[in-house]
Amino acid sequence: MAPASRLDPAVPDKVLAVSRSLHGDGEDAPEIVFHPQCFLASGHFAGNDDARAQAFLDIANDEAFDALWFARGGYGSNRIAEDVLGALKPTARNKTYLGYSDTGFLLAGLYKAGFPHLAHGPVIADINRPGGEEAIERGLRYLFARDVKTLEPSVSAEKPSAAFNTAILSTLIGTDLLPDLSGHVLMLEETSEYMYAIDRMMFHITAHAPLRNLAGIRLGRCGAIPDNDPPFGKTEEEIAKHWCGVSGIPYLGRANIGHDIANKIVPFGRLPKV
Amino acid sequence: MAPASRLDPAVPDKVLAVSRSLHGDGEDAPEIVFHPQCFLASGHFAGNDDARAQAFLDIANDEAFDALWFARGGYGSNRIAEDVLGALKPTARNKTYLGYSDTGFLLAGLYKAGFPHLAHGPVIADINRPGGEEAIERGLRYLFARDVKTLEPSVSAEKPSAAFNTAILSTLIGTDLLPDLSGHVLMLEETSEYMYAIDRMMFHITAHAPLRNLAGIRLGRCGAIPDNDPPFGKTEEEIAKHWCGVSGIPYLGRANIGHDIANKIVPFGRLPKV
Repeated sequence: MAPASRLDPAVPDKVLAVSRSLHGDGEDAPEIVFHPQCFLASGHFAGNDDARAQAFLDIANDEAFDALWFARGGYGSNRIAEDVLGALKPTARNKTYLGYSDTGFLLAGLYKAGFPHLAHGPVIADINRPGGEEAIERGLRYLFARDVKTLEPSVSAEKPSAAFNTAILSTLIGTDLLPDLSGHVLMLEETSEYMYAIDRMMFHITAHAPLRNLAGIRLGRCGAIPDNDPPFGKTEEEIAKHWCGVSGIPYLGRANIGHDIANKIVPFGRLPKV
Repeated sequence: MAPASRLDPAVPDKVLAVSRSLHGDGEDAPEIVFHPQCFLASGHFAGNDDARAQAFLDIANDEAFDALWFARGGYGSNRIAEDVLGALKPTARNKTYLGYSDTGFLLAGLYKAGFPHLAHGPVIADINRPGGEEAIERGLRYLFARDVKTLEPSVSAEKPSAAFNTAILSTLIGTDLLPDLSGHVLMLEETSEYMYAIDRMMFHITAHAPLRNLAGIRLGRCGAIPDNDPPFGKTEEEIAKHWCGVSGIPYLGRANIGHDIANKIVPFGRLPKV
């Protein structure tokens, strides 16, 4: 289902082809179902708020499904979060939820509600990026096999992790959706924002007192940064280090996440001990 | 002084000309001093954080000045707010502070600290807008004569008011700079943000529980909105009404503020009773 913007109708065939190349056509092959809501259009959104919330609940509350893989981000998950979170049934808790960017509003709310299987990683629409099969294959290998090669390399069984787009986390601050991230390694990524806006969001995130209890911040990729006039004068990593320094949050280095096909998977919380 | 981006060096002569046309050249004419920091350059900023903070303190802590009129916004007032607020002397409290946009970070922190003479309105750099003399004249008439014709028409002695740029207020949420705005009429304006971003910020502002105690929201102008693909499908006023409805905050209509020469003045708090 698509909690925010609508999905290109050409996407399902491409994604099913990647799945067939991985799993074959046999009876053991996982079944992938695209909720018809993905292709609705209501202005900016994949259907109005009610249609998107209902589609989420159709999947989440149906025990026949093992996972809900978000079709794409865009904008609008925040608009359905309250309705969705108020109507989830116990079976919804057993599923895996995978997505990033705008879908972070829902991952945040579900994490706050104690859902155990949430992950920041590719969305279905990543198939439309050049080489996007790589992202889809990663998603499938994570969802159906928990392949450790799909994981961001710093996630561990010792320290809990979480990952967000900076604009989404900034917008979560002060709302009922923000989970307690104390002790977590927080990974952040961004796309298409001015460098000054990245600086402002990093200020915001590190100024929020509850987030000063993070174990640390890792900076993912910040892509497609529009030109600033005059040039901002600092890189995104200098910005992250600056605000970590001001706030006393440890800066832990880079994270292998971003709005791109290399976007590795960050399960929320601790990895299971093996 | 310029707490964020630097000022065009051609501005002072133009502003002084407006002042002369209003007040003449006599001994009674108010003296306007441009702090040399306004013209410093450090990447994006009008000098580095230390230089900008020091310039603010040079004016605020000098009892020879009656007002601090921000040279312009841009980005960066948040970066000096903590240092500035920690070093203000009692004389700083008696001054009037006037500005908008990014300078809202400082107005917020000063309002939280109980400063009584804060106002959202033109900045010096507005002289460079077509017809900008009008904005400068409004600032001068407010600062030197408290001319009631300069005021946003809905401000009153009964209910306290406050005004912010939506992106700045969104970034204030969850930080130590956000004042208690319970019972206030909150006026919001925006420029150069996508409609989806305006929707996201209005969600954020109305989702923050302490802001649900507002007396109401008035929407100023939202200008220079970049095209959205697909079109967002709602106007900024429909957005404001939607989120006011969701949150239970009264929507009170439009406010005569914005990133333009018509930007009327909103003193923070209640007007004095006459």
